[in-house]
Amino acid sequence: MDISELIHKLSKGEIKLYEVENFVQDVNKAAEVRRAFLERITGSTLKNIGYFSMDLNVTAKRNIESPVGVGQIPMGVAGPLRVKGDYANGLFYIPLCTTEGALVASVNRGCSAITESGGANAKVVRDYMTRAPLFITPSAEHAFRLTQWVKEHKKEIEEVFNTVDPFVRFIDVQPWIVGRNVWLRFMANTFDAMGMNGVTLACDKACKFIEETVKFARMISLSGNLCVDKKPSAVNWLLGRGKTVVAEATLKREVVADKLKTTPEDVVDVCIRKNMLGSGLAHAYGLNAHAANVIAAIFIATGQDCAQVVESSMALTTAEVNAEGELYISITLPSLEVGTVGGGTALPTQREALTIMGCAGAGDPPGANAKKFAEIVASACLAGELSLLSALAAGHLAKAHARLGRASRI
Amino acid sequence: MDISELIHKLSKGEIKLYEVENFVQDVNKAAEVRRAFLERITGSTLKNIGYFSMDLNVTAKRNIESPVGVGQIPMGVAGPLRVKGDYANGLFYIPLCTTEGALVASVNRGCSAITESGGANAKVVRDYMTRAPLFITPSAEHAFRLTQWVKEHKKEIEEVFNTVDPFVRFIDVQPWIVGRNVWLRFMANTFDAMGMNGVTLACDKACKFIEETVKFARMISLSGNLCVDKKPSAVNWLLGRGKTVVAEATLKREVVADKLKTTPEDVVDVCIRKNMLGSGLAHAYGLNAHAANVIAAIFIATGQDCAQVVESSMALTTAEVNAEGELYISITLPSLEVGTVGGGTALPTQREALTIMGCAGAGDPPGANAKKFAEIVASACLAGELSLLSALAAGHLAKAHARLGRASRI
Amino acid sequence: MDISELIHKLSKGEIKLYEVENFVQDVNKAAEVRRAFLERITGSTLKNIGYFSMDLNVTAKRNIESPVGVGQIPMGVAGPLRVKGDYANGLFYIPLCTTEGALVASVNRGCSAITESGGANAKVVRDYMTRAPLFITPSAEHAFRLTQWVKEHKKEIEEVFNTVDPFVRFIDVQPWIVGRNVWLRFMANTFDAMGMNGVTLACDKACKFIEETVKFARMISLSGNLCVDKKPSAVNWLLGRGKTVVAEATLKREVVADKLKTTPEDVVDVCIRKNMLGSGLAHAYGLNAHAANVIAAIFIATGQDCAQVVESSMALTTAEVNAEGELYISITLPSLEVGTVGGGTALPTQREALTIMGCAGAGDPPGANAKKFAEIVASACLAGELSLLSALAAGHLAKAHARLGRASRI
Amino acid sequence: MDISELIHKLSKGEIKLYEVENFVQDVNKAAEVRRAFLERITGSTLKNIGYFSMDLNVTAKRNIESPVGVGQIPMGVAGPLRVKGDYANGLFYIPLCTTEGALVASVNRGCSAITESGGANAKVVRDYMTRAPLFITPSAEHAFRLTQWVKEHKKEIEEVFNTVDPFVRFIDVQPWIVGRNVWLRFMANTFDAMGMNGVTLACDKACKFIEETVKFARMISLSGNLCVDKKPSAVNWLLGRGKTVVAEATLKREVVADKLKTTPEDVVDVCIRKNMLGSGLAHAYGLNAHAANVIAAIFIATGQDCAQVVESSMALTTAEVNAEGELYISITLPSLEVGTVGGGTALPTQREALTIMGCAGAGDPPGANAKKFAEIVASACLAGELSLLSALAAGHLAKAHARLGRASRI
Repeated sequence: MDISELIHKLSKGEIKLYEVENFVQDVNKAAEVRRAFLERITGSTLKNIGYFSMDLNVTAKRNIESPVGVGQIPMGVAGPLRVKGDYANGLFYIPLCTTEGALVASVNRGCSAITESGGANAKVVRDYMTRAPLFITPSAEHAFRLTQWVKEHKKEIEEVFNTVDPFVRFIDVQPWIVGRNVWLRFMANTFDAMGMNGVTLACDKACKFIEETVKFARMISLSGNLCVDKKPSAVNWLLGRGKTVVAEATLKREVVADKLKTTPEDVVDVCIRKNMLGSGLAHAYGLNAHAANVIAAIFIATGQDCAQVVESSMALTTAEVNAEGELYISITLPSLEVGTVGGGTALPTQREALTIMGCAGAGDPPGANAKKFAEIVASACLAGELSLLSALAAGHLAKAHARLGRASRI
Repeated sequence: MDISELIHKLSKGEIKLYEVENFVQDVNKAAEVRRAFLERITGSTLKNIGYFSMDLNVTAKRNIESPVGVGQIPMGVAGPLRVKGDYANGLFYIPLCTTEGALVASVNRGCSAITESGGANAKVVRDYMTRAPLFITPSAEHAFRLTQWVKEHKKEIEEVFNTVDPFVRFIDVQPWIVGRNVWLRFMANTFDAMGMNGVTLACDKACKFIEETVKFARMISLSGNLCVDKKPSAVNWLLGRGKTVVAEATLKREVVADKLKTTPEDVVDVCIRKNMLGSGLAHAYGLNAHAANVIAAIFIATGQDCAQVVESSMALTTAEVNAEGELYISITLPSLEVGTVGGGTALPTQREALTIMGCAGAGDPPGANAKKFAEIVASACLAGELSLLSALAAGHLAKAHARLGRASRI
Repeated sequence: MDISELIHKLSKGEIKLYEVENFVQDVNKAAEVRRAFLERITGSTLKNIGYFSMDLNVTAKRNIESPVGVGQIPMGVAGPLRVKGDYANGLFYIPLCTTEGALVASVNRGCSAITESGGANAKVVRDYMTRAPLFITPSAEHAFRLTQWVKEHKKEIEEVFNTVDPFVRFIDVQPWIVGRNVWLRFMANTFDAMGMNGVTLACDKACKFIEETVKFARMISLSGNLCVDKKPSAVNWLLGRGKTVVAEATLKREVVADKLKTTPEDVVDVCIRKNMLGSGLAHAYGLNAHAANVIAAIFIATGQDCAQVVESSMALTTAEVNAEGELYISITLPSLEVGTVGGGTALPTQREALTIMGCAGAGDPPGANAKKFAEIVASACLAGELSLLSALAAGHLAKAHARLGRASRI
Repeated sequence: MDISELIHKLSKGEIKLYEVENFVQDVNKAAEVRRAFLERITGSTLKNIGYFSMDLNVTAKRNIESPVGVGQIPMGVAGPLRVKGDYANGLFYIPLCTTEGALVASVNRGCSAITESGGANAKVVRDYMTRAPLFITPSAEHAFRLTQWVKEHKKEIEEVFNTVDPFVRFIDVQPWIVGRNVWLRFMANTFDAMGMNGVTLACDKACKFIEETVKFARMISLSGNLCVDKKPSAVNWLLGRGKTVVAEATLKREVVADKLKTTPEDVVDVCIRKNMLGSGLAHAYGLNAHAANVIAAIFIATGQDCAQVVESSMALTTAEVNAEGELYISITLPSLEVGTVGGGTALPTQREALTIMGCAGAGDPPGANAKKFAEIVASACLAGELSLLSALAAGHLAKAHARLGRASRI
């Protein structure tokens, strides 16, 4: 069938958009057909969407269906940022895909201040991907029995779970009971992959084993919303998902004054009133200023699952003035879900972005690259927090204090 | 200075990455220099990042600093989806930028089932952008006086606020007191723009007016984290930010059986146990299955602020079996922050993506396009919810029920 | 029927415990019968439960069914506490019913330190009781229409609402939509009564009016859990229920040192790390140390609804060192539900407890007593916070700082 | 000193209220003096507060300071309620201290319907008391090292912890890191005691051991608000504190119709829309109707710590129609903090109330009584939920459905 005939049939609804590949083998060509059809019905041109360097035949196998081309997101680079982590050690440039003017400049300013002060310490303190299938049982008594059975048969569950993928290794499984419902939250090491799909498949197998053995228990949903994927929640906030990472830095007074135009005391004051009290009042999963900005920009640049910005950006920022009058600032990300293999990480521009940070592909030992990446991401978030808190403090706090009769010192 | 000299100086740290534009006027050229430098220090090539169709001279004015090129995100198209809204009315194709395989196919399946059942009703039920600066005052008594003053002088505050931008119109301001701190949450109509920057500027002016008039009150931070921008929170969940949109559809039993391979009863059961009970246990801002997937993909495709996926994806999905045995399903998005002008919406591929939905640029009357877009986004999320809930139900629920002695009917 | 016969029939299940009044007119006597029956089946004596000074004939009309007697809760008195409120002004003694040793002593210590420093400022900044019935409508469109109708007919709704009780006056009604469900949160001034029952009755009448007029809307539940009564929630946390009260005090360094054995800096440090960071991590509705202890003790003593300790004890405690090096401390209670008439406030011991604070019965003007009481309660909570935070700081912080290489100053 | 002289000195402020015991040995007498003083300054009589059967000399040693007497709270009894638990098995009468009219009657109705349907299953599925001290360390690296050290030295920590009290047995300790702060949440078996004080003392000793050994770590607060005591929080909601208990019952259609005047379908509908959707929208720690009412009433009656009503009343109520058309209803209380020894449980009336349920004092084996009590409490809450949900459904739902064009079946 030639293109015009295809478009004709698409217009008449005889062929669906996703069926184009049935008639056009080459996916790049199929995308062209879709664009042509959409151009016709909208009377516009989609030439920019059609301008790209990837081979959709490859992409369509892993990342997209019914492709029409690409979205181009501007990429800027902040840095260098000195990171002193267990895996990331040295100066790093941070690729950021964003459309929000001033974001790259702001992060860059933070990187500069931190680097001049000796860099950011970064550490992954917890690491596992999770999935929590939901079972129903005939009664609460049965629900309890199921959780006991799981506890007593962890070894066998682990064995089944571990047959699915050599890079998805069982760590533990934690149960919850509500009435006659049971959630089993599986935790696994997924090394350099973000790992959600791997864990889901391993979970599915493990759950089938459980269903077959514990006859009264039936899985009602492979995800019971206690995983928690792509919803902000107390579960990830408290128990983590992906990497839990901390980054911190101590900034000299002069650096705060010269680079950030404010004082440690004023930054701390804004941090407490805005990040702690304001977020507390808002009942937010996020005692931070704008971690999501940095997370989203890095996620797009490096092929992470951008819907996971939701929970990956949950963050607690603290600031204190230390005994030497310096500014200590930290950020803790309880649920940073990142990988350097799988997902969109192998796409051309994303792979290049990871390469800029020396994080592309599998690490040696396995998992090392994803941890290195997590350390850099947390440090970049720290730079973003420092810069925005300082900007808020500098813009207004100084003047405010001068005029405020009964000023606060913290 | 020629490129190799610049790269040399960059390598020695004599020039910062963001300073390249000082030596190379053309931003596209500056990006090339940055890429060349990064290629050298990483020993890799960034040719894909350098492959794009936008003019960075334009982009650098609004959307990015220290640009190196673009990230290319695969774009697929789902649909057609019939939407019956106040602004969106007809069949729509949904451009989705994602790297998660199966997402476009899943949304597409939902679109198909909904469209076959007559389409999705969609409605914007609340609409305003917000910003909540934080003030300190000498005491709780003063804090109260400030809130009273604001209440009594709303007209004057409105006048000042409205001088900044004809497309940022004051709606109201709501106060909160904690100790001697006061948050003033400004609400404004920003028409077709997402509007955060516009509201911020108007707020700044209004707050300066307040500070000048109420001498004891001083703004400590232009954002007090009660806005709430880019943090999941009860404030937006309950009070909204951007558009609050509802989409709903009623699906015939046959459609649920044929297209979705399940029954209304089983979809409802998964919805209640997973989305309501599971999310309730997780204490999530999100009684939904995966709204963030759809939100993130549309946001990237259309130039929205991707960090706002955080709160824009907060959603409540409900499902019921109606008296005719059909499946009624709805999604409510309390805080959908979208625009069709400003931000990244004018970038080449993003503009084209908006055009596919007939939503590019300013609406007539102003605001109509953003509302139309919001209706389509909510309907697409509904399609995503329907498809995933059905998949979960079909995969497991049917078998489960057959074997489960004491099955539930809901 | 004589007692032994009654007990015999109770034992055989021929009479239910609540039916005793059908055979014994005097309620005190009926309680005696119940005790005798329970004593027999448990082989124990209930003489203490039977030892009380109230007339159950009166109590059974308003406060209890199937009475057997009373629980005696030890009552201690803390104070005097100087309160400087709009309604409470002077020295107050605080009656506290508790079984937790050290609580009265702790509150007393806080009262002493505050009073010596000049007293606590207290202010009611918001005041209304709420009830949020839940409606269903045929569709989201209808849901929206209902909310619009309510908005446009507030005057009529108010008129109907206000016919029920002269001391329940309509303030406003705020709508929420989820899918085809609508919550209408009614707010009313209930003067000196906590007012929940009054608002419920007025609501019921208003909702019947709405149902009759808006034919497509039907009330599904007179309470839709968005009121929110007796569940900790973001609704009350952000929007208030009952009184929103702030109390604050400034303590001289010497008082902090002499009475509380610590320093302003250390109290602030514990407050930030425990109350803000700890509670933030716990995702608590409560950035405080132990407000619930004081609330519960006063509520029992004064005849408040003790199940409302849940939301009434939600509190935000802040601490700062001011420019003079003094300790500024505040507490904000967003949802303090109290009354001085109605509920258990007229019971003999409770009435006396209210009298100790000069708050018994209706105020002049109406509402003045409940506000006075709220100011005292908040001030007592402040005393409790100050005392516990100081104890934590004194016990450990001083030594910690001496040994901690890199101490924090805040 | 005679009484009138004491009162004179109290009036002049020469003696504080809490110092009366210094001059009057007998605490009952001291209470009389305080009452006399308060009567004088308020011009009222406190004779009811002075009417009690306990010996304050005993009470003042454990439960109260500066006592003046007691608060008398009316006690009613609901039941019998059939409970089928692991510890509670049989018919139970439930003593409830409340001042809210209709509460005892409502619970009683629920008890009756449940008992007629065969009773409530009840089960304790998790059991430990917790305390979470807060440490600071010099850096995130040190924070991590502390948590690793704790993990590797659990055996030694357990040994130290277990030296304090034979009825406080170490179970586990779970760490959290935020920046350079570390919370260690200790979990212990406290048998028949609620156990907070015991765990606090054991914790203090364990923490001193940690501080002495891990030189860089210093405890900043013995409670870091992650315990979580007396604040509603995600920590207890998800991880439990005290007992996690489930109670459930299945009610025949006839019983629902006859006793509760409604249908299983309507109860389920109210449960889903109010308890799940309403509470989800309210972002409540509580998907229930009014568990706090029952918890508060039993807590006062039995000498529990009434400030712990806050977290003990967090509950998830579910309702479903089963395959036989019966109503299945369950309640899950994740954080029920109760004891039958310690606290106020030995007070005269409280002891008698526990005796009514056969739960007074230490169990055999230790812990058995507290678990039995927890099972009864959960079952009583279930009765309360059933009764209120039915009342809401009966009052309005039936009529609503008749008139609502497009009724829901669930």
